[in-house]
Amino acid sequence: MNTFGRILRISLFGESHGGAVGCTLDGVPPGIPLSEADLLPDLQRRKSGKVGTTPRQEPDQPRIVTGVFQGHSTGAPLTILFENTNTRSRDYRQFVDSPRPGHADFVAQQKYGGFQDYTGGGHFSGRVTLGVVAAGAIAKKIIAPAAISSEVLEIGGQQDYEAVLAAAVEAHDSLGGIIQLRVDGLPVGLGEPFFDAVEARLAHAVFAVPATRGIEFGTGFPAARMKGSEHNDPIIDERGTTATNHAGGINGGITNGNPVVFRVAVKPTSSIGRPQRTMNFAKGAVEEMLIEGRHDSCIALRIPPVLEAVTALVLADFKLVAQATAPAPQGS
Amino acid sequence: MNTFGRILRISLFGESHGGAVGCTLDGVPPGIPLSEADLLPDLQRRKSGKVGTTPRQEPDQPRIVTGVFQGHSTGAPLTILFENTNTRSRDYRQFVDSPRPGHADFVAQQKYGGFQDYTGGGHFSGRVTLGVVAAGAIAKKIIAPAAISSEVLEIGGQQDYEAVLAAAVEAHDSLGGIIQLRVDGLPVGLGEPFFDAVEARLAHAVFAVPATRGIEFGTGFPAARMKGSEHNDPIIDERGTTATNHAGGINGGITNGNPVVFRVAVKPTSSIGRPQRTMNFAKGAVEEMLIEGRHDSCIALRIPPVLEAVTALVLADFKLVAQATAPAPQGS
Amino acid sequence: MNTFGRILRISLFGESHGGAVGCTLDGVPPGIPLSEADLLPDLQRRKSGKVGTTPRQEPDQPRIVTGVFQGHSTGAPLTILFENTNTRSRDYRQFVDSPRPGHADFVAQQKYGGFQDYTGGGHFSGRVTLGVVAAGAIAKKIIAPAAISSEVLEIGGQQDYEAVLAAAVEAHDSLGGIIQLRVDGLPVGLGEPFFDAVEARLAHAVFAVPATRGIEFGTGFPAARMKGSEHNDPIIDERGTTATNHAGGINGGITNGNPVVFRVAVKPTSSIGRPQRTMNFAKGAVEEMLIEGRHDSCIALRIPPVLEAVTALVLADFKLVAQATAPAPQGS
Amino acid sequence: MNTFGRILRISLFGESHGGAVGCTLDGVPPGIPLSEADLLPDLQRRKSGKVGTTPRQEPDQPRIVTGVFQGHSTGAPLTILFENTNTRSRDYRQFVDSPRPGHADFVAQQKYGGFQDYTGGGHFSGRVTLGVVAAGAIAKKIIAPAAISSEVLEIGGQQDYEAVLAAAVEAHDSLGGIIQLRVDGLPVGLGEPFFDAVEARLAHAVFAVPATRGIEFGTGFPAARMKGSEHNDPIIDERGTTATNHAGGINGGITNGNPVVFRVAVKPTSSIGRPQRTMNFAKGAVEEMLIEGRHDSCIALRIPPVLEAVTALVLADFKLVAQATAPAPQGS
Repeated sequence: MNTFGRILRISLFGESHGGAVGCTLDGVPPGIPLSEADLLPDLQRRKSGKVGTTPRQEPDQPRIVTGVFQGHSTGAPLTILFENTNTRSRDYRQFVDSPRPGHADFVAQQKYGGFQDYTGGGHFSGRVTLGVVAAGAIAKKIIAPAAISSEVLEIGGQQDYEAVLAAAVEAHDSLGGIIQLRVDGLPVGLGEPFFDAVEARLAHAVFAVPATRGIEFGTGFPAARMKGSEHNDPIIDERGTTATNHAGGINGGITNGNPVVFRVAVKPTSSIGRPQRTMNFAKGAVEEMLIEGRHDSCIALRIPPVLEAVTALVLADFKLVAQATAPAPQGS
Repeated sequence: MNTFGRILRISLFGESHGGAVGCTLDGVPPGIPLSEADLLPDLQRRKSGKVGTTPRQEPDQPRIVTGVFQGHSTGAPLTILFENTNTRSRDYRQFVDSPRPGHADFVAQQKYGGFQDYTGGGHFSGRVTLGVVAAGAIAKKIIAPAAISSEVLEIGGQQDYEAVLAAAVEAHDSLGGIIQLRVDGLPVGLGEPFFDAVEARLAHAVFAVPATRGIEFGTGFPAARMKGSEHNDPIIDERGTTATNHAGGINGGITNGNPVVFRVAVKPTSSIGRPQRTMNFAKGAVEEMLIEGRHDSCIALRIPPVLEAVTALVLADFKLVAQATAPAPQGS
Repeated sequence: MNTFGRILRISLFGESHGGAVGCTLDGVPPGIPLSEADLLPDLQRRKSGKVGTTPRQEPDQPRIVTGVFQGHSTGAPLTILFENTNTRSRDYRQFVDSPRPGHADFVAQQKYGGFQDYTGGGHFSGRVTLGVVAAGAIAKKIIAPAAISSEVLEIGGQQDYEAVLAAAVEAHDSLGGIIQLRVDGLPVGLGEPFFDAVEARLAHAVFAVPATRGIEFGTGFPAARMKGSEHNDPIIDERGTTATNHAGGINGGITNGNPVVFRVAVKPTSSIGRPQRTMNFAKGAVEEMLIEGRHDSCIALRIPPVLEAVTALVLADFKLVAQATAPAPQGS
Repeated sequence: MNTFGRILRISLFGESHGGAVGCTLDGVPPGIPLSEADLLPDLQRRKSGKVGTTPRQEPDQPRIVTGVFQGHSTGAPLTILFENTNTRSRDYRQFVDSPRPGHADFVAQQKYGGFQDYTGGGHFSGRVTLGVVAAGAIAKKIIAPAAISSEVLEIGGQQDYEAVLAAAVEAHDSLGGIIQLRVDGLPVGLGEPFFDAVEARLAHAVFAVPATRGIEFGTGFPAARMKGSEHNDPIIDERGTTATNHAGGINGGITNGNPVVFRVAVKPTSSIGRPQRTMNFAKGAVEEMLIEGRHDSCIALRIPPVLEAVTALVLADFKLVAQATAPAPQGS
């Protein structure tokens, strides 16, 4: 549902055009220096406004409503709100009758029996990830000194993607992309097999992010074409450093001290400004539709801080859990 | 940890060379016709013995210890045991000093402080998936009439893989592969966003299975190179059928009534019969090691029923949860 | 922690003097008619202002921020906020040095390392139950037509408690009380043994409410002094009606169709206006303290709607879970 | 359902006359010295055979199937089995038609649609608590040096209960009792409000145990008749020792370093050898029934090690969780 994590638990809420979006983060250790300013850099990175992203501008100002006192986390739940202010009135009702291809319009209507908030995508809106990014900024503090970075490997199949992006914007079409995540400085021993293998929870969190279509760890899909003698990573020192990192920093579902590396495939944005076919349920006929307005041509450009955030949330939770499940002191 | 699911919950236990492996499955609706014979077909498919798989032969006979009465599930927890009988004594202690590349030897030693059962891989052994496959056979009954199928798309990069497999066996090396899963007949509306998107929980469960390195839904990684106008699936009838299925049967994290399709990358088996370098912690030096014995040259050939099983477990849980979260009857 | 429930899940947040208190309720079925006005009657009952309750007056105006659209629940998380407006500045810091007897001052200081919000009790404040009462009002809609009622059985040991209450107020002292809860109209079959017996989850939720010291179901403690021949409830019709209800409507952890009845002991309010001894950690000496200000002389008078709310939350969750775990249709 | 705990998680399974009863305990820290012999003392205390308990004698021999290696816990799930050997064949089918008063016969038939294992009480049998006691013996090791003790305060209303017990046995009737639990040596700071207050989880676990009807902490129900000036416990030293312990060692849901004390009311055993009225659903009429065989006349005499076990499981889980949620090191 909308809660995730064992010790560090995020609960998400909100709709694009409702009163607010936000999250509650429970299980944050007390004593972490924290203010709203700490959340702004990642929120800024998530913002639209660049080429290929929607011109809708929200202030995206986080308000830490609870859980911080005198500049530190208190140990009580931390609720962060983003009030919705820029909700354009518009005829979203039409998408109940004529569900947009690639969107959740059709499944939401079926699952929620017509009661879903259909304005602006409702709870399916990418705007809900604001709470994820804010929580992730806190999780990054928990996993320090480990550090997460991300890189746009390609957009529309191109490493140098400016031209293809401009062409897509011009054509009112959209592009996807591939993002690589990397985490340096993790200790050996995070992860709780069987079901809470590090890859398992990372993938879980990554696929919760809208528009993700694939994930691969270490060498990933190409590993399926390697021989064991090529793929196995030789251990070359007493800290567990490996000569290669085909495993992506994880063995048996547990971090091995090498960088955790994975890549995420992001689909082209579903909202495009070109004619599309869909079923019109009111008329009982397939017809052509054109979605007006301006949208992100490439959500992959805004998704990196969201992927970093879910990565941080997963790893911070693992770190706290590892403190709980450490070997018993000798003599106990 | 070792429990997974919200309503239908599997708890796994066991080690390769301990007393047994098995599982407890809680939340099974009462009244499902069930006997040990129902579990055998998938267990048989998981078995070794074919070319490219280990010649270790266990009877793999499941014993349903609890939760079945007069041929039906009772609604109480269902425990299934596989006694370990064919545990070859062997010097596994050496792998604590000289951790095998690609295995969990090193991380287990670090995480569990030397107390892990290191014989035969312990709880990290692929033998633990016996309990998964048995539970999956029950989950398949819960999701009926929906049906799961799997297909080996390629081994060692080859669709026609017999020659490459024979060569790998000959060379005491190993191969990976790519498996495609497909689920037909699912209703519209399974999945519970934000965090329990269908892809999220499927990926979680898939990456819990040892040796998985990647997963992609629908068109997957290639979708990152498509335009939105190519990738969006037009809805062409009132049941939500789409002209194409780039989305792999899922929109907004919810099943849309089309076949759910995803592919899984399986790495080459880590155990190979060729010299490898690793750190010898007793000597404090990197040296060459040779792992004796015979192993699976291609675990990808045995993994399909395991992947089907975790798929069934996830979807059955979603089906039960959907019964709980259905829209309120009018007038309530 | 601060989340409770399997399908219907409440997440609580807030501090007495922080920005707000409130809750997020996930798993609410879509289609339930709902507005802020529906929450007011129980919130009004929880309010202070009567004899024996604190004169601090907050407007306690709930704001449903998310999860309601066009007058109905949407199926998305429902967040309800109560902004804190009447936070009197006062020297709460003194209670870190001289922890108040009966309060959480000492344990909070130890557990949270001094980072807890100590103003007004912080997250330990009874004000946090505002979110519980609001969520409970929604849960009551889910369990309808079953209905919950509560009764103050005694205050300060007296059924007719006006005089004893006036005397306590006069003496700047406080009183406890016993509250009886009753639920009529529940179906047979709610409850999920072993660990989710109905009494187990009700007691869990009741003891989460501050100031509760005991709970007993049906005949309760006096049942320990009865013979089995006296205590067993004869079943007298085909719906399971029993001649007596010593069991309090629950057998084997499952509702039996008779009224669910239990009583809760509420301690006398810890804040009193009389001199008390406590350790002054700054001085390293035990000394007398006097807590200024005005407080509830009897929290038991305000707690009934809170107890009704947690009862409703538990039973609504059981109702939704029962829909998920119902017997399989014949022929499945 | 049948799993309980956040880090230390017990999963229970089994029926009285099925193949076995037992449990899986996940989250046990690696390195705890452990063998089957360690489980025997508490299992022996739970055994029947004394006056007032059933003469059914099972060997109750635990088998640790997984999770222990070379005499220590490994960190992998620990499964403990008790094979059922002494299952007397008998006509339990009659209790489906004529449900026994005080038993779960009626509710099980309704909830599980007739598919429940009705022999010997099935999953509702007290025999299922064998797994609880075994797991509790391990949990006691985790909370050491804190120690749990229990005391039978009264049986049938008498502190000196031999005569009243003999009379009940003679009359084929049954008695209840009150048990007091006490835990010494706990650190300050266990417990995770709001919902995981120490009392909340202890009460949850206690009411999962069959036959419990009430619980009270510290002074309990009598506290409802005290004044605040009498009930508040003065803190008298820097470790938080209090002059009195009306609070039962818990403030604000968190242990305060004083002994945790609570009492549990146990109902008289439902199975009695005297005529009782019940509905015969086959005949559609109320009639008199007589349950043959011999049963516990006083389950309260066997329940103390079960209550100790659930207490240990709850506190051990809190201890591990507290390691995860400790304040962040300065400078983090």
